[in-house]
Amino acid sequence: MDDPVLLTGAGGAVGAAILEGLEDAYEWKLMFHSPPAEEPDHEYLVGDVSSEGDVAAAMDGVGAVIHLAGDPRPEAPWDSVLENNIDGTQKMYEAAVDEGVEKFVFASSNHAVGSFETDERTPEMYRPDDQYRLDGTELPRPGNLYGVSKATGEVLGRYYHDEHGLSVCNIRIGNLTRGHPPIDYERGQAMWLSYRDCAHIHDCALQADYEYEIVYGISDNDRKYYSIERAKDVLGYDPQDNSAHFDGEERVAEPEP
Amino acid sequence: MDDPVLLTGAGGAVGAAILEGLEDAYEWKLMFHSPPAEEPDHEYLVGDVSSEGDVAAAMDGVGAVIHLAGDPRPEAPWDSVLENNIDGTQKMYEAAVDEGVEKFVFASSNHAVGSFETDERTPEMYRPDDQYRLDGTELPRPGNLYGVSKATGEVLGRYYHDEHGLSVCNIRIGNLTRGHPPIDYERGQAMWLSYRDCAHIHDCALQADYEYEIVYGISDNDRKYYSIERAKDVLGYDPQDNSAHFDGEERVAEPEP
Repeated sequence: MDDPVLLTGAGGAVGAAILEGLEDAYEWKLMFHSPPAEEPDHEYLVGDVSSEGDVAAAMDGVGAVIHLAGDPRPEAPWDSVLENNIDGTQKMYEAAVDEGVEKFVFASSNHAVGSFETDERTPEMYRPDDQYRLDGTELPRPGNLYGVSKATGEVLGRYYHDEHGLSVCNIRIGNLTRGHPPIDYERGQAMWLSYRDCAHIHDCALQADYEYEIVYGISDNDRKYYSIERAKDVLGYDPQDNSAHFDGEERVAEPEP
Repeated sequence: MDDPVLLTGAGGAVGAAILEGLEDAYEWKLMFHSPPAEEPDHEYLVGDVSSEGDVAAAMDGVGAVIHLAGDPRPEAPWDSVLENNIDGTQKMYEAAVDEGVEKFVFASSNHAVGSFETDERTPEMYRPDDQYRLDGTELPRPGNLYGVSKATGEVLGRYYHDEHGLSVCNIRIGNLTRGHPPIDYERGQAMWLSYRDCAHIHDCALQADYEYEIVYGISDNDRKYYSIERAKDVLGYDPQDNSAHFDGEERVAEPEP
């Protein structure tokens, strides 16, 4: 990929994981919501995805997009996700079409399907021997309005792909934590995504050939209720981590990736 | 159903079909976007679904909702569908939860799945001998931003059902025309919905027991690419019309339903 890759939400946790893993693999153009604490080593701007002007400036000259920006709070109120996540994502897609961007990777979320975790299915579905799987072909069942906004972002991508031809990959990101999985939290261990696997799956989404995809972004955990088969098959995702490998002493001893 | 049924978008075509067929079947509370030309025979108000105050006034005292209001233009610009269709529907659901409404019927649209009509499938999919069917379990593929807004309304309903328990029925309304199907328009004949079948399917949606449903609202046309099996099975939908019965002279001679 010769043109720069625009990374929005560059100041967030997912952005940090991607930059740590792929710092030198792409020419980055970073978009921050607030001025970064340290001067970035890459071209960057500060702006808001709900501003058409900021979005146009961000998109100028890029060949691909990883769109992470938005209100990241699962409990975010409707007005905020409407503006930042839904309207902001539509503005990003419009600008991407205007710029002729070929590939658009969208940070969707496990919260788009949070209500599949019913009282009847939990906590069994979080356990290694349980066979329940979501694979991305199911209709969304958001557990909160943030999840509604992420499901809407996926639908926007479907429309822009069908109508305008850009490749769209929606990654339903699990529970990203640095170094080791959440402790004493089965659900978080089941949807754990390590930093290096997070960088790798985004690398795959920038490299692979596809039309429109919805995949789950988790490590290869023994506990899982999200299938990663589609990510493996279409994107070539080859995760290195597994939350089961971090128990007791070993968990503490594991070096940061 | 003892409490009044709120009908938003009462001044539109779908609203007219419902009121013509079910005038005396329910105690109606009508919400118009513009003042009606004639004084309605039912309680009514004029208001905007993007106004929280108007929505609260509309919802006051009702037991069920048929929510049709919104920008109905397939070519509507994003800002309008964002405000009127997406934000407006969220405000309606919030108010319905506050009021303790038990049943919420949402006017979704064929445009939520318009991009399934690819060059490869058309015009064959519009023809009586073609077996291609959408059944409502497929992920949306909107053909325009209006369709994106309707798919988002469906996701909002999923969330409010899962989180708050009200029954939600999304009816993906086809091509509603009065008296007879569109002439010389295979696609419109395949998704034709007669006025009386339109009233009937909404009656079914108010009467039947269900949790969360997505059904197609078309007559029992020989030409069809939307399955009506789910509407029959769950809602007890029993359509009386078929666009194939309106040909040439007969079409012109058919009295209005």
